[in-house]
Amino acid sequence: MLKAVQILNWSSGLTIITQRLTKTRNSSSLKLSTFSSPPRRILPLNPTRMSSSQPGSDPLPKSPAFVSVQSSGAVRKIKFCQLCGGTTKHEIPDGEEKLRAICTHCGRIAYQNPKMVVGCLIEHEGKVLLCKRNIQPSHGLWTLPAGYLEVGESAAEGAMRETWEEAGATVEVISPFAQLDIPLIGQTYVIFLARLKNLDFAPGPESIECRLFGLEEIPFDSLAFSSIYVTLNLYLEDLKKGKVKFHYGTINKRPGSSPSDIRAFTLDYHLQP
Amino acid sequence: MLKAVQILNWSSGLTIITQRLTKTRNSSSLKLSTFSSPPRRILPLNPTRMSSSQPGSDPLPKSPAFVSVQSSGAVRKIKFCQLCGGTTKHEIPDGEEKLRAICTHCGRIAYQNPKMVVGCLIEHEGKVLLCKRNIQPSHGLWTLPAGYLEVGESAAEGAMRETWEEAGATVEVISPFAQLDIPLIGQTYVIFLARLKNLDFAPGPESIECRLFGLEEIPFDSLAFSSIYVTLNLYLEDLKKGKVKFHYGTINKRPGSSPSDIRAFTLDYHLQP
Repeated sequence: MLKAVQILNWSSGLTIITQRLTKTRNSSSLKLSTFSSPPRRILPLNPTRMSSSQPGSDPLPKSPAFVSVQSSGAVRKIKFCQLCGGTTKHEIPDGEEKLRAICTHCGRIAYQNPKMVVGCLIEHEGKVLLCKRNIQPSHGLWTLPAGYLEVGESAAEGAMRETWEEAGATVEVISPFAQLDIPLIGQTYVIFLARLKNLDFAPGPESIECRLFGLEEIPFDSLAFSSIYVTLNLYLEDLKKGKVKFHYGTINKRPGSSPSDIRAFTLDYHLQP
Repeated sequence: MLKAVQILNWSSGLTIITQRLTKTRNSSSLKLSTFSSPPRRILPLNPTRMSSSQPGSDPLPKSPAFVSVQSSGAVRKIKFCQLCGGTTKHEIPDGEEKLRAICTHCGRIAYQNPKMVVGCLIEHEGKVLLCKRNIQPSHGLWTLPAGYLEVGESAAEGAMRETWEEAGATVEVISPFAQLDIPLIGQTYVIFLARLKNLDFAPGPESIECRLFGLEEIPFDSLAFSSIYVTLNLYLEDLKKGKVKFHYGTINKRPGSSPSDIRAFTLDYHLQP
């Protein structure tokens, strides 16, 4: 069975393509009840090898065909080797399953891996700190202070650094709150609960404004990204339940939806410790 | 105050350098009591700006000097632009604080970001599944099935894929168990608790052997990486306490220690939800 998945040109520069996706396991997909998107399940598909270990039983899928949704366009954009300057060829290397850019001169493979976006959900006297973006994408919309993790820092350190850069706020990280993967754009959000060390904060160059919002005031109609929408909803739901927990989940954008529709997604694999 | 930090040539190809590190916040460093490494604290250092918001109080650090431990050698290895083939210059771009490789032809900056290593801690009837590595580094030593996350898959999907590739095992992810950052080598381990869907497993090309170990049998003296050592210790400690929880932490290799000494580290920022 094949499933058409549209790769959206969201904020990562991926080109729009349609790719066949095969999967072979049940997803423990959970949908946040307050979200507007319909449930989506990743179904067990196309076993490529059958198990013979259970005589008499139905054949079980043995080899999951793990084919991730990936834009070959992004790989094909890599035309030169960073190290030697040689031109690349685009092939699936021996023993691998994915198209890679391989240097025709030195043989180096240019792997591409997801990036971590680290940020803080800052609580202060029943309010949360949000920043209005002064940069694209989502200029003028509200977000948590967050940005790409750098080599040489931990996720907690990166989250505090981004909070300083975007909100001029000095914070203390309290606990991990969420890991939200967005496979479509090769990003993983890692959000920590944090508290202000003092009340000094002010927008950095990437922010127009920084403000503490009461929980009833959070501008859900003017948030910058699905990941922020999910994070704040999970936080409010936890508060209602009386206990803030850690959340793992995958944000799958609904095929065909607009990049600006931050509610057009499902939260799959929503797992908690 | 300055702190010398040695960058080790561990498993990432980073060159050995000594770099000055300034930090300005208190670390909530917790050390696992069963570990052999001494406690290490990241101390508040060199505030670069003083706050005047609290008249009469001691000056407070206002601007944390977030300088991550990064090898400039890795950046300097990038000599050509992947997209246009232009030569790079190595400079700190306007508005940034880190050395980057910038294309002299098209102006593109080649950012380098940490990679996520995703894997499974597979529980089966009081035993855990380990793989003996058939590749370098750490050939012949034991590890959890784990590997680099690919663009287009979630961390949970990547962990299941790696488990299939390295152990031939079909698993179901149950819950997130740990996120362990290793800033020194630009890696973050994301480990899930998982269970076998059936008892079929067999070593893939990257493994010599795969085996279920009773908790008393875990080969702690023959583990491949500090991250695996930490993960299994946290798991055993949780079991002793009667509740398996999610752990966030930073593994900081002890300066000057050998790459092969997987116990020469501290677990800093050990946080739990």
